[in-house]
Amino acid sequence: MCRWLAYSGSPVRIEELLYKPQNSLIVQSLHSHLGAETTNGDGFGVGWYDDQATPAVFHGIEPAWNARNLQELSGHVSSPLVFAHIRASTGSAVQQTNCHPFRYGTWLWMHNGLIRDFMTVKRDLALAVDPALYHRIEGSTDSEIMFYLALTFGLEDDPPRAVERMVGLVEATGRRHGVEYPIQMTIATSDGRSVWAFRYSSEGRSRSLFYSTDVLTLRTQYPDNPVLHALSDEARLVVSEPLGDLEGAWQEVPEASYGVVRDGDDELGPFTPRLPEAMAGGNGVATVRQ
Amino acid sequence: MCRWLAYSGSPVRIEELLYKPQNSLIVQSLHSHLGAETTNGDGFGVGWYDDQATPAVFHGIEPAWNARNLQELSGHVSSPLVFAHIRASTGSAVQQTNCHPFRYGTWLWMHNGLIRDFMTVKRDLALAVDPALYHRIEGSTDSEIMFYLALTFGLEDDPPRAVERMVGLVEATGRRHGVEYPIQMTIATSDGRSVWAFRYSSEGRSRSLFYSTDVLTLRTQYPDNPVLHALSDEARLVVSEPLGDLEGAWQEVPEASYGVVRDGDDELGPFTPRLPEAMAGGNGVATVRQ
Amino acid sequence: MCRWLAYSGSPVRIEELLYKPQNSLIVQSLHSHLGAETTNGDGFGVGWYDDQATPAVFHGIEPAWNARNLQELSGHVSSPLVFAHIRASTGSAVQQTNCHPFRYGTWLWMHNGLIRDFMTVKRDLALAVDPALYHRIEGSTDSEIMFYLALTFGLEDDPPRAVERMVGLVEATGRRHGVEYPIQMTIATSDGRSVWAFRYSSEGRSRSLFYSTDVLTLRTQYPDNPVLHALSDEARLVVSEPLGDLEGAWQEVPEASYGVVRDGDDELGPFTPRLPEAMAGGNGVATVRQ
Amino acid sequence: MCRWLAYSGSPVRIEELLYKPQNSLIVQSLHSHLGAETTNGDGFGVGWYDDQATPAVFHGIEPAWNARNLQELSGHVSSPLVFAHIRASTGSAVQQTNCHPFRYGTWLWMHNGLIRDFMTVKRDLALAVDPALYHRIEGSTDSEIMFYLALTFGLEDDPPRAVERMVGLVEATGRRHGVEYPIQMTIATSDGRSVWAFRYSSEGRSRSLFYSTDVLTLRTQYPDNPVLHALSDEARLVVSEPLGDLEGAWQEVPEASYGVVRDGDDELGPFTPRLPEAMAGGNGVATVRQ
Repeated sequence: MCRWLAYSGSPVRIEELLYKPQNSLIVQSLHSHLGAETTNGDGFGVGWYDDQATPAVFHGIEPAWNARNLQELSGHVSSPLVFAHIRASTGSAVQQTNCHPFRYGTWLWMHNGLIRDFMTVKRDLALAVDPALYHRIEGSTDSEIMFYLALTFGLEDDPPRAVERMVGLVEATGRRHGVEYPIQMTIATSDGRSVWAFRYSSEGRSRSLFYSTDVLTLRTQYPDNPVLHALSDEARLVVSEPLGDLEGAWQEVPEASYGVVRDGDDELGPFTPRLPEAMAGGNGVATVRQ
Repeated sequence: MCRWLAYSGSPVRIEELLYKPQNSLIVQSLHSHLGAETTNGDGFGVGWYDDQATPAVFHGIEPAWNARNLQELSGHVSSPLVFAHIRASTGSAVQQTNCHPFRYGTWLWMHNGLIRDFMTVKRDLALAVDPALYHRIEGSTDSEIMFYLALTFGLEDDPPRAVERMVGLVEATGRRHGVEYPIQMTIATSDGRSVWAFRYSSEGRSRSLFYSTDVLTLRTQYPDNPVLHALSDEARLVVSEPLGDLEGAWQEVPEASYGVVRDGDDELGPFTPRLPEAMAGGNGVATVRQ
Repeated sequence: MCRWLAYSGSPVRIEELLYKPQNSLIVQSLHSHLGAETTNGDGFGVGWYDDQATPAVFHGIEPAWNARNLQELSGHVSSPLVFAHIRASTGSAVQQTNCHPFRYGTWLWMHNGLIRDFMTVKRDLALAVDPALYHRIEGSTDSEIMFYLALTFGLEDDPPRAVERMVGLVEATGRRHGVEYPIQMTIATSDGRSVWAFRYSSEGRSRSLFYSTDVLTLRTQYPDNPVLHALSDEARLVVSEPLGDLEGAWQEVPEASYGVVRDGDDELGPFTPRLPEAMAGGNGVATVRQ
Repeated sequence: MCRWLAYSGSPVRIEELLYKPQNSLIVQSLHSHLGAETTNGDGFGVGWYDDQATPAVFHGIEPAWNARNLQELSGHVSSPLVFAHIRASTGSAVQQTNCHPFRYGTWLWMHNGLIRDFMTVKRDLALAVDPALYHRIEGSTDSEIMFYLALTFGLEDDPPRAVERMVGLVEATGRRHGVEYPIQMTIATSDGRSVWAFRYSSEGRSRSLFYSTDVLTLRTQYPDNPVLHALSDEARLVVSEPLGDLEGAWQEVPEASYGVVRDGDDELGPFTPRLPEAMAGGNGVATVRQ
C-alpha cells in the first residue's frame, strides 16, 4: 500500500508539507503508523500546480527518506496545490512510470490500496479504457488503470460520478472473476482548481483517510499557535494519516464517501459505485439512472 | 534502435563477449558504426542459460559503458548461451521492464528496430495477445508485445512460423491504420538449446545482422589465431554489427530470412510474414494454409 | 546501521542464503529484529569468491527487498564463500561506492556500526591511511576508511592484529577530539580462504553478532532436518542476527572478541585494540610490543 | 570531459536554456561538437538561485537526454542565475556526489577538464584542503577537490586570486610528481550575484569556452529577432560550446583568462596561476605578494 497527502491553500514550499511535520510523509516512508505496510520505500512522487499549463510531476524510485533531489526540490518549490505520494509496491515493478501522482493533461491522480487479483482482471479493465487513451498507459499498476478508466467515464466532467463508475466496473469485473472484495482505495484527484478525495472499499473497511479541520476553527481553539496563523483561511490537507497530534486538527473521512476541497464551501458526500452505462444493459444503452 | 549479440557454443565468461572484442557491445554503446543511432545508452540487458530451470536476466537502466555491476558480473559468470542487448529508446521509458532480453519460461527474446506508429496500433496488438498471457506484459515497448504475440502464435512449438505470424499481424494492423512500412526488425530468441535469428522489414531495407563464420573454416584460414582455437567447433555468434575486422569472419544474414543455430547443422531460410489464421478469414476460422 | 552475513562452506546458490531463510537478510531489510534501525533500505551488496583471481562484488542502491537483479543473480550464482550486506545509512550518501562489501585485491570487508563524530575525525583517519592506498578510497563512509586503515596496519599479514591497530587508532583519534565512545562495530573480512569476524565497541555494548553452531552437532540434535544434511561439515555462517529460530543453531560471539572460520578448527579469541607503533611514541618509533 | 552553461540575467525557465536551443546541452549530451568526448552521458546537474538562502542543486546519474525529472523540473522552475552541467566521466564513479555543480554555502562550482594523473596527486591535494573543510568533500572527483582548494585559498573573498592559487598548487604538485601538463580546465563559479568563468590549461590549449555577445549589440544587429528582445539587457551566457549558430552571438574566452558577469560592466582579465603563500616559502609565512 501507500501513503499520500494533498494540499490546497496559500502557496507553501513543499518541504513544509513533506519534511517539517512531526509525522511527515518522509517519516511515514520509514515507519507508517496506520498503513497496511509500515515501510513505504518503493519510490515516491510529487505533483504540483503553478502558472504553467500543466502540473509538474517528479517521480523517484528510491525511498523518499534518502532522496536528495526530493529534499532539494521541496526546499525551493512553492505551490498552492500539491500532491505527494510514497509507495509500497504490492508486486508491480519499482519504476518511475509506476509512481504516483499520474498525470493526464491538467489532471493528477494518486491512490492507496489495490485492485485484488489484479492479474486476473487486468486485461478486462484495460480493454474498457477508451481506445483513444489506451496507449497513454505507461506503467503496470492497478492505480494507473483506475485513472484511465475514470477518464474514460468522464472524470473531466463529473469526477465523483466518473470514479463511481470506475469502481462499479472494477467491482463487476472482479466479481465476474470470483473476487470477493474487488477494490480497496483512497484516491485524490485534481484539475488544478479543486481536489476530490475518495474513500471506499468493497468490504466496507477502507484504508484510513483524514482531512484537516477548518483553519478558522483551529485558530479559535489554539489562538497562540503560529503555524495556524501562517496558513490561509482556505488551506486544507487531505492525508492517509494525520501529520501530527494537534487535538481536533484531523477529521476522518467517513466510509464510502468523497469530499471536494475548493474555493468556497468544501463538500462531503456519499460514494456509491455504479456500473457504467455501456456495461449495464444488453442493448448497449444506459439502463442505470444517473 | 539497439544493438545485440547472441552467443552459442562452449561456455565462455560473458566479458569475453561483451568487453574484450575490438568493436565490443560496450564500445558500440558509446559509438555504434552501423546502428540507426550512434549512441545506445538507454539501458542494457544480459540473459544467460546455465543448469537452472530458467535463464537468468540482468537488466540495467544506466548506459552499459559505465555499468559497474555489468562488468563485475561479466567477469564472473560463464555460460554456453548468452544474449546481450544495448538499448537506444525510440520513446518508451528507460526502465528495467523495458530492457531486453525479455523472458518467458525458458525463452529469451530481444529485438532491434521498431513497430512504426506504435502508439496507433498498440491497443490492437495488445488485444491480439493470448488473454492468458496479457497480464505478463510488464513494460511499454513494442519489442515486448512482439514477444507475447509470437508466444501467442506458437513460438514454443515452431519459432519461425510463430514469428512470421506475429509480423503478419503487425503488418496487417499497421496497414489498416495507414502505416506504409509497419515493421523493422532483427530478432533473436532461444529456448536454451537453439537460437533463432530473424532479419526483416516491411520496406525490405532491414537493420544489419551478421553471423560468425564456421569456426573450422576460420581456423583453416588463420591457423595461428589463438582465439579461434579456444572456441568450440560449434561456437557461433549472431550480432547487429561485426565485433572486429577479421576478414572472412562475418557473414551478413540476407534480407527477409532467418537462421537457426543449434547442435548439428545450422540452418538459414526465407522469412515470409503471414496472417495468423484467426485474423485471416471473415468466418473466424483459419483460411490460410500452414 | 546495517545487517550482514558471511558464509563459508560447500558451494551454495546465493538465494539459499539471502532469500530462503525464515528471517533472511531480505526480510531484515524491511524489518530487522535486532538492528539499531529496523529498516535497512539504503542499498545492499554481495561479494563472492569463485575460480577467478579476485572476488566479485555486486552493489545496489535500491532496497534489497525490491532489487530484481539481486534476486536473479542470487538464483544463478553459487559460491563457497559469500558476503552479503544491507545498509542503513548513518548519513553518508546512498551510492554504489558506499555499499559493502568493499574489495581490495583478494580481500573483502564489511561492517555494521559506526565511527562516532566521523566528520570530526575523518581527516585525521584518512591521513593515517598508507599514502599508496589513499587514492583507492572511492566512497565517503567510515567503514571504507576502517578497511584501508586495516590494510595499512597489515590486514594481509595478520588480520586480528591489523584490526586491533585500526581500532586502537580510531579510539585514540576520537578521544583526542573528545569523543567518549569512538567506535561501534561488527566486521567481517576474508582473503577467500578464511573469514575473520570481529565484535567490539568502545562502550562494551556491541551490536549483535552470531555464528552458526557446528553442523555435526546440529545434525546429532536434529537427525531428521534435511537442510542440515545438505550442508558440508565445514559450513559456517556468521550473521548480525539469527536467520531462523532453530534452537541451538546460533551462538553469540562474545563482547570484544574475534573468530576465524577456516579449513581445520575454527578459532575464537579476545580482541584488544592497540595503538599502531608509529602513533604510540613521541619519538616516531614503535614503543608498543607486538 | 564535460559540457556546461552558466546563465545570468532576467529570470528564465530552465527549459529555455537546456532544451530549446538548437545545439542545447541536451543535444550535446548525445553529440557534442567541440567536446573531448562526443557523448556526455555520465550524469548531469543543474543549480539555480532563487529567494532562498542557498541555491538549489539537482543531480542525476542517468544521461540528460533521457532524464524525465530534469525535463519536468526545467519546464517549471525559473531563475535569474542557472548553472547546468553534463558529465563524461574520466574514470570516477557515476554517482550524484560526483555530479556538478558542487555547492558550498551560497557558492556553486562546475568544471570541464581534468587534473592529469589525479590518482598520483590526489592525496597531496586533499591534504592541502583546509582541515575544517576536508570532511565536506563527498565525492571522488578532481573537480570537487579543486572547489575545496579554491575555498581554502579564499574563493569567497577574491575568486580570481583563489582560483589562481588553486591552479598554482595543482601545477606545482603535479610537476613534483613528474606530470608534464597537470591541469586542463574551464570553470564557472558563483555566489548568486556574480558569475566567474575561467579558461586555462598547463599546455596552453584549453577546452573551448564562449560567452554570449552583449544583448544590446545583438539587438541592433538583428532588429527582428524576438528572442533577443525577450532577454534583459544584462542577460549573459557562458558556455562550453555555442548553443546555436547566430552569427556574432558568441565570443571565445581567450586562453588563460577569466571573466566576470555581474550587475554593471562585465570584466575580462588574464589568468596567472600562482603558488599559495603557505606553499611558496620555506618559513611557513607568505612570501608571495598578494
